[in-house]
Amino acid sequence: MAELVDKADSMNIYLYTGLKILFIIVFWRIVNILLNKFIDKFFRLSPRLHMNEKKSNTLSGLMKSIVRYTIYIIMAISILNVLNIPTESILAAAGLGGLAIGFGAQNLVKDVISGFFILFEDQYAVGDYVTIGSATGDVEDIGLRITKIRSFNGDLHIIPNGEVKTVINHSRGNSLAIIDISVAYEADINKAIKILKDVGEKYYEKNKDKVVDLPSVLGITGFGDYDVKLRMTIRTLPLKHWSVEREIRKDIKEAFDREGMVIPYPKRVNINLNEKE
Amino acid sequence: MAELVDKADSMNIYLYTGLKILFIIVFWRIVNILLNKFIDKFFRLSPRLHMNEKKSNTLSGLMKSIVRYTIYIIMAISILNVLNIPTESILAAAGLGGLAIGFGAQNLVKDVISGFFILFEDQYAVGDYVTIGSATGDVEDIGLRITKIRSFNGDLHIIPNGEVKTVINHSRGNSLAIIDISVAYEADINKAIKILKDVGEKYYEKNKDKVVDLPSVLGITGFGDYDVKLRMTIRTLPLKHWSVEREIRKDIKEAFDREGMVIPYPKRVNINLNEKE
Amino acid sequence: MAELVDKADSMNIYLYTGLKILFIIVFWRIVNILLNKFIDKFFRLSPRLHMNEKKSNTLSGLMKSIVRYTIYIIMAISILNVLNIPTESILAAAGLGGLAIGFGAQNLVKDVISGFFILFEDQYAVGDYVTIGSATGDVEDIGLRITKIRSFNGDLHIIPNGEVKTVINHSRGNSLAIIDISVAYEADINKAIKILKDVGEKYYEKNKDKVVDLPSVLGITGFGDYDVKLRMTIRTLPLKHWSVEREIRKDIKEAFDREGMVIPYPKRVNINLNEKE
Amino acid sequence: MAELVDKADSMNIYLYTGLKILFIIVFWRIVNILLNKFIDKFFRLSPRLHMNEKKSNTLSGLMKSIVRYTIYIIMAISILNVLNIPTESILAAAGLGGLAIGFGAQNLVKDVISGFFILFEDQYAVGDYVTIGSATGDVEDIGLRITKIRSFNGDLHIIPNGEVKTVINHSRGNSLAIIDISVAYEADINKAIKILKDVGEKYYEKNKDKVVDLPSVLGITGFGDYDVKLRMTIRTLPLKHWSVEREIRKDIKEAFDREGMVIPYPKRVNINLNEKE
Amino acid sequence: MAELVDKADSMNIYLYTGLKILFIIVFWRIVNILLNKFIDKFFRLSPRLHMNEKKSNTLSGLMKSIVRYTIYIIMAISILNVLNIPTESILAAAGLGGLAIGFGAQNLVKDVISGFFILFEDQYAVGDYVTIGSATGDVEDIGLRITKIRSFNGDLHIIPNGEVKTVINHSRGNSLAIIDISVAYEADINKAIKILKDVGEKYYEKNKDKVVDLPSVLGITGFGDYDVKLRMTIRTLPLKHWSVEREIRKDIKEAFDREGMVIPYPKRVNINLNEKE
Amino acid sequence: MAELVDKADSMNIYLYTGLKILFIIVFWRIVNILLNKFIDKFFRLSPRLHMNEKKSNTLSGLMKSIVRYTIYIIMAISILNVLNIPTESILAAAGLGGLAIGFGAQNLVKDVISGFFILFEDQYAVGDYVTIGSATGDVEDIGLRITKIRSFNGDLHIIPNGEVKTVINHSRGNSLAIIDISVAYEADINKAIKILKDVGEKYYEKNKDKVVDLPSVLGITGFGDYDVKLRMTIRTLPLKHWSVEREIRKDIKEAFDREGMVIPYPKRVNINLNEKE
Amino acid sequence: MAELVDKADSMNIYLYTGLKILFIIVFWRIVNILLNKFIDKFFRLSPRLHMNEKKSNTLSGLMKSIVRYTIYIIMAISILNVLNIPTESILAAAGLGGLAIGFGAQNLVKDVISGFFILFEDQYAVGDYVTIGSATGDVEDIGLRITKIRSFNGDLHIIPNGEVKTVINHSRGNSLAIIDISVAYEADINKAIKILKDVGEKYYEKNKDKVVDLPSVLGITGFGDYDVKLRMTIRTLPLKHWSVEREIRKDIKEAFDREGMVIPYPKRVNINLNEKE
Repeated sequence: MAELVDKADSMNIYLYTGLKILFIIVFWRIVNILLNKFIDKFFRLSPRLHMNEKKSNTLSGLMKSIVRYTIYIIMAISILNVLNIPTESILAAAGLGGLAIGFGAQNLVKDVISGFFILFEDQYAVGDYVTIGSATGDVEDIGLRITKIRSFNGDLHIIPNGEVKTVINHSRGNSLAIIDISVAYEADINKAIKILKDVGEKYYEKNKDKVVDLPSVLGITGFGDYDVKLRMTIRTLPLKHWSVEREIRKDIKEAFDREGMVIPYPKRVNINLNEKE
Repeated sequence: MAELVDKADSMNIYLYTGLKILFIIVFWRIVNILLNKFIDKFFRLSPRLHMNEKKSNTLSGLMKSIVRYTIYIIMAISILNVLNIPTESILAAAGLGGLAIGFGAQNLVKDVISGFFILFEDQYAVGDYVTIGSATGDVEDIGLRITKIRSFNGDLHIIPNGEVKTVINHSRGNSLAIIDISVAYEADINKAIKILKDVGEKYYEKNKDKVVDLPSVLGITGFGDYDVKLRMTIRTLPLKHWSVEREIRKDIKEAFDREGMVIPYPKRVNINLNEKE
Repeated sequence: MAELVDKADSMNIYLYTGLKILFIIVFWRIVNILLNKFIDKFFRLSPRLHMNEKKSNTLSGLMKSIVRYTIYIIMAISILNVLNIPTESILAAAGLGGLAIGFGAQNLVKDVISGFFILFEDQYAVGDYVTIGSATGDVEDIGLRITKIRSFNGDLHIIPNGEVKTVINHSRGNSLAIIDISVAYEADINKAIKILKDVGEKYYEKNKDKVVDLPSVLGITGFGDYDVKLRMTIRTLPLKHWSVEREIRKDIKEAFDREGMVIPYPKRVNINLNEKE
Repeated sequence: MAELVDKADSMNIYLYTGLKILFIIVFWRIVNILLNKFIDKFFRLSPRLHMNEKKSNTLSGLMKSIVRYTIYIIMAISILNVLNIPTESILAAAGLGGLAIGFGAQNLVKDVISGFFILFEDQYAVGDYVTIGSATGDVEDIGLRITKIRSFNGDLHIIPNGEVKTVINHSRGNSLAIIDISVAYEADINKAIKILKDVGEKYYEKNKDKVVDLPSVLGITGFGDYDVKLRMTIRTLPLKHWSVEREIRKDIKEAFDREGMVIPYPKRVNINLNEKE
Repeated sequence: MAELVDKADSMNIYLYTGLKILFIIVFWRIVNILLNKFIDKFFRLSPRLHMNEKKSNTLSGLMKSIVRYTIYIIMAISILNVLNIPTESILAAAGLGGLAIGFGAQNLVKDVISGFFILFEDQYAVGDYVTIGSATGDVEDIGLRITKIRSFNGDLHIIPNGEVKTVINHSRGNSLAIIDISVAYEADINKAIKILKDVGEKYYEKNKDKVVDLPSVLGITGFGDYDVKLRMTIRTLPLKHWSVEREIRKDIKEAFDREGMVIPYPKRVNINLNEKE
Repeated sequence: MAELVDKADSMNIYLYTGLKILFIIVFWRIVNILLNKFIDKFFRLSPRLHMNEKKSNTLSGLMKSIVRYTIYIIMAISILNVLNIPTESILAAAGLGGLAIGFGAQNLVKDVISGFFILFEDQYAVGDYVTIGSATGDVEDIGLRITKIRSFNGDLHIIPNGEVKTVINHSRGNSLAIIDISVAYEADINKAIKILKDVGEKYYEKNKDKVVDLPSVLGITGFGDYDVKLRMTIRTLPLKHWSVEREIRKDIKEAFDREGMVIPYPKRVNINLNEKE
Repeated sequence: MAELVDKADSMNIYLYTGLKILFIIVFWRIVNILLNKFIDKFFRLSPRLHMNEKKSNTLSGLMKSIVRYTIYIIMAISILNVLNIPTESILAAAGLGGLAIGFGAQNLVKDVISGFFILFEDQYAVGDYVTIGSATGDVEDIGLRITKIRSFNGDLHIIPNGEVKTVINHSRGNSLAIIDISVAYEADINKAIKILKDVGEKYYEKNKDKVVDLPSVLGITGFGDYDVKLRMTIRTLPLKHWSVEREIRKDIKEAFDREGMVIPYPKRVNINLNEKE
């Protein structure tokens, strides 16, 4: 550019410089207008973004301001540049500020990228019963930045998508009801297993709308301090396992009562020494 | 620029350089004045920023100082540049200092971005009963940088917004009262369930201002060492579940006393061996 | 470039500049078309990427948009450059934005690299029973970005591959059934060990389809508060150890009952002082 | 600069270069003097910085040394530059050293920024009773870099402000005394509640200087293994809750003794089997 | 380059540029071919890399593709450069992409460096019994990127070498069998110690193939609630300590039975108050 | 520089280049000598740096080597530069190596900065009894990089200063002796409180060299399962609280014995059912 | 360089370029040879680096390869540069690869720096008994990168020096034997203390080779549920405290037996209610 000066007369230089500045101003005004239109178009999609109009107006106004001021700064630096005024130090200062903001905004970007994959991979949908970190409940809302989960007791958990690592989705397959029962060491274990089997089969006959398979009595899962531990499992429709477990526990209790089988109390052998003091 | 020198006489060079320096000084003075005005305007909004006048004056003074000194440094480097004095080493030194400050200020930027989203997404409002990390209580104040929570026992928790990850909002939906009760293995479980149902229904009739649904007696939630565990749940208005639980517990205790049903003490079977030593 | 201007007449400069711009536009159009073709080709592989057609269309559309806008920006900067308009500040702004996105996208890259090695090193295959972090179950699906694990109770665990650190694969070798049994301090330990051995050998004879080795009775693994702890182990086919353990526990219980050997209840020596108060 | 050589005779070049070096030396001497004055001025504020004179002298000496050596290095590089000696490698070496220091000094910057906000937002003041991380006690001193907390038992906790995340301030609001009491299942619960109410009201009448509200007896907060758990709460002036709790506990014990109500001992039902061995 | 234009006629420029482009293309083709040869040579070592032929083909194909596309991009940028088309923006875009990949690939590099040192320092070898993090078992395979450990119960642990921090190698030295035994407060402790010593010495005589030293009875390691705790230790060959412990426990039990020494049951002093209620 | 060539004859160029190389060599030799002197001077301070002469010689030799080789590299690059040989690739390689070292050396810088503030702010001094992280004991040595703490049982804890976050200094203020005592529910609580008060006052009279205040009996701090919990506190000189607590406990035990007040044993109410089986 | 072309004829250019390339090749060959010599010299020190000859050969070969290929790349880039072929894109690609390796190699640098300080500050020496993180044992080997610790039970812990944070060195000072003993509430505490003192003094007389000070009986360290807790401490030579504790425990047990003092069994007060059911 400077070489051009070499050949032209100085009038021309000023003219040329002026034209450049004019071009810069016009160019960036056009960019500004285009970006504003883009922002407006983006926010006209707001119903799909779960935002009401007031919020969408606030946010689009904010984004337009950020764009406008960023363009003013770029414009100013470009003009200074054309005028041969050194701008390295301004660029460095702006760059450091921008770097701080960029680092701070990392979490925002992470949330959005993570949110995109949750939706795209359909990891969970509204209505699913999921566990994310320490929160368990029904998904009430999935946004690009946050997921809302309504837990059993009515609490609303608001989780940034970037915090969503491993997801446990309880609604994507049949559940398993697991019932553990103790019998005494002295008891007839074969009889106990038979009672469990009978109770399970009768339950299966009456509840085919909830249960998808015949129950299976697994056997002795362990020897306790004063009991033999038995386990029975039944495959149920998704999320039906809690009620199935409670109902089968009641059936077992009643069958045990009928058959004279008891769930044992803790036992201890006492060796008594009657000293005198 | 140097090439210009080629053609002009040396007088002109000094003049040209002098003009440039003058331009730089004037330009940055104007930028300084504009930024000061902007700061003043920003702080005139201070009532909306939860700041009293004294604080707002302190902060605006501080920010003006930072702006002034930053501009002085940029101005000095620009002039050195125009004078052909090498400035790379100064830029590098300033850049490293700025980098350290930029990294240190990351948390501040994170707090403000996080605070913006809390307000914009309405994750919680003043008066909501929320759990954030280890703090539970009523939200007393939400600022751009910190959230203040007043816990049940009167403590004030001051939390930087950047530390707010998952939020549990207890005020955005009906609560659930959960009452667990034990009966003995020997007891009549159907009778116990009936008592619970009666108590629940009577309570519902008398407390329709607190309770939104008929209670449900879920059944046997587990076999304990010496008790059968029953559970009853009632959907209540937000945050009413504590008092509902306490009142229903009292009703159950009285109904059990009336009906001769007891909550069992721990039991143990002792096998006594009377040795002689 | 500017020097070229030196020699040519100004008409030529404008022509030359115009030609360059034309070249830039044509060049990038071609790049755009090629990249679109590449994206289409990549997605025609989608059956191998576990994606249905709708998802694959959505994703390819999204990627084409990203490519198109990125090329527009590069094109604009190149043209500004040719026109001698300074672009450092735009480059810096775009670079910072890109940096923020790049940092945010780190997790995505990590997931894909990790996924590639899981598949390439065959760390686990669909159907294997594995433990990854806190999730244990059958692998249902392995993608480049996520692994899906179906746990015993029907829950679906969705784990980003970047979260997969140490993998425990339970299906890549025979399992070991471990049975711990207690006998009283007063009992005949040699007799107990003999019973265990007999039970184990009989079990081995009848279950050669599940068990791969004769069981070994290890001996006394510890002295408890009121019991001597014995351990028996049997090598089984992969994942058969749970059922083998349960069946052998039943056999031992029956053999102990037959032989008059008992699993001891907790014992305590009571020294009774009958005070008067 | 080299082009200038083109026109001038070589004498001039040496003169010009010499003048530049002179200018650089003079310029940086002035900067050094100005910075020293600034440091002195800063430390004359030292009483407001919680420093005694000796410390302030040490620190200002140290800072002047750092400034002096940094300026020497910048000066040396600038002169080498003017002499046409390549300096990129020195700049790179210095830059890397500076980067290491910059990273290491991050914590210092964080501490100071955090300290500024603690003071500015008045998160806690000297004398407040606060909990920060694992430290609880009275704030004894707040500096820009560290906070000192004196705990109940006399320990002094010294906490860098950058480690201060969530603050619990116990002095910014009335406290709540919470008294839990157990009564036996056989006891008359209404009578127990009445006693608690009477005790609370009498206490309130006599201690209006400590207590700000009538106590409230909440009711049955749970069923224990052998007791019904009751709770009473009273709102007190800040930090008075410990003494109020102790005094009310004594009043309750005495009222219970008077009324024949007892706090129950643990109970167990023993089923005795007298075996012979 | 541009100055060359100064002297030559424009024909020459185009020729010169064309030659350069040709050179670039030829140069990079050669680099490509050389790198492919290098890759082939590397994979011909695959038996030493624990890879089967199919895997080695897949991986070498993948690496050749990456090399080819990288070279295409470098070639394109170089040609654009020669043609005077600005490439800074492309470089920046490619750089950011590369940065993201570079950050994502950090773990891969860490794994390989860590793997190299494990092998070079011989921290563990195939067959050693080691503990790495939460995994304990026999090392089955050590690769550059992962280590495979087969645990006692048959599980296969797959650990990226970068996750290997502190290693516990149990096979690099004799093990120590530790046997803790309790005797009653009333018992003759010197007699108990003598029994232990006799048992240990007899065991040592009969098991010199497993045990490397005479056992040592350490003495009273603690006073329990109802027992005096004694400890005996024996140095054994690597990993023989478990079986030695079990065998010595059996010998002690038999010697105690012979000598009338007992391992005490828990004891409690009961002060009985026979109230009337 | 190249332009200079324009005017001079080629002899001059070689002469000029040679002179520059000479200057570079001389300049860096001088820098090397100066830095060696600085290192010597620094280490002559070594007695104040807690180093013996041998260590100080080792370290100064090492630092001189590092300086020498760094200067050789800078010198080589500068000369290559003067000879017009491209050095960007060497600079990049050296820069990356330096970056790796710089990152690795971060901890060292952190340790030294942290150590400076520990000394400057006098967070603890040699002889203080402090808790840092999991280490508690007397400070034996404070260096710029590490702090040594001698714990009660003789262990020496060596802590890098960068690991020192929150410091608990037990020697910077009077300690508080806290004595908890239990009395039975049936006991006369007023009498117990009176005994505690008497014991405390008598102790205070006899131990004014250790105790700085009259003890205060706080009252009932809680209701236990079978005891009323009382607490007494006394402010003592720093670190005297352990011996004061032990002595007062003995005084209380003796006073209780004298007055017939007992510390209660655990109590249980047994409801005996004599079943037949 | 290009300007040189201006004056010379084209033959000269090619000659000049050829000479430069020759110089580059010769220069880097020399650098390569020098570095190889340096590597050989370094490894001739290998006995002092704890390496056998085979390892040292492997490592020196590896390092020579790395050096050779790095120099080839630098050489190629330099030649391309001289030939006016653009190399920015290659530099960028190489830089990114180098960055990834640099980040991955951070841990290696950290280990070596940390290892240097461990040796230089003599934090521990071979033979010391130390605790580092979760590993406790005798230091068997200290290298620049790893420390090997042999634990009591024979395990070998291999710890990268960068993982060494806080070190507990048990061999740098006398140890303290701590013996806790319980006596009944009914016992004569002064008599118990006297017995402890006598035992301790007699032990001191007989074991002056292990014990460095008269033992001190601290007094009552706490009131247990059914015992008064007494403590005695003795300062011993390093690591002798375990055997001293065990021997004194035996002496105390014997003295207690002689004097009729007993260590109390757990006690409980039973309030018996004989119900009828």
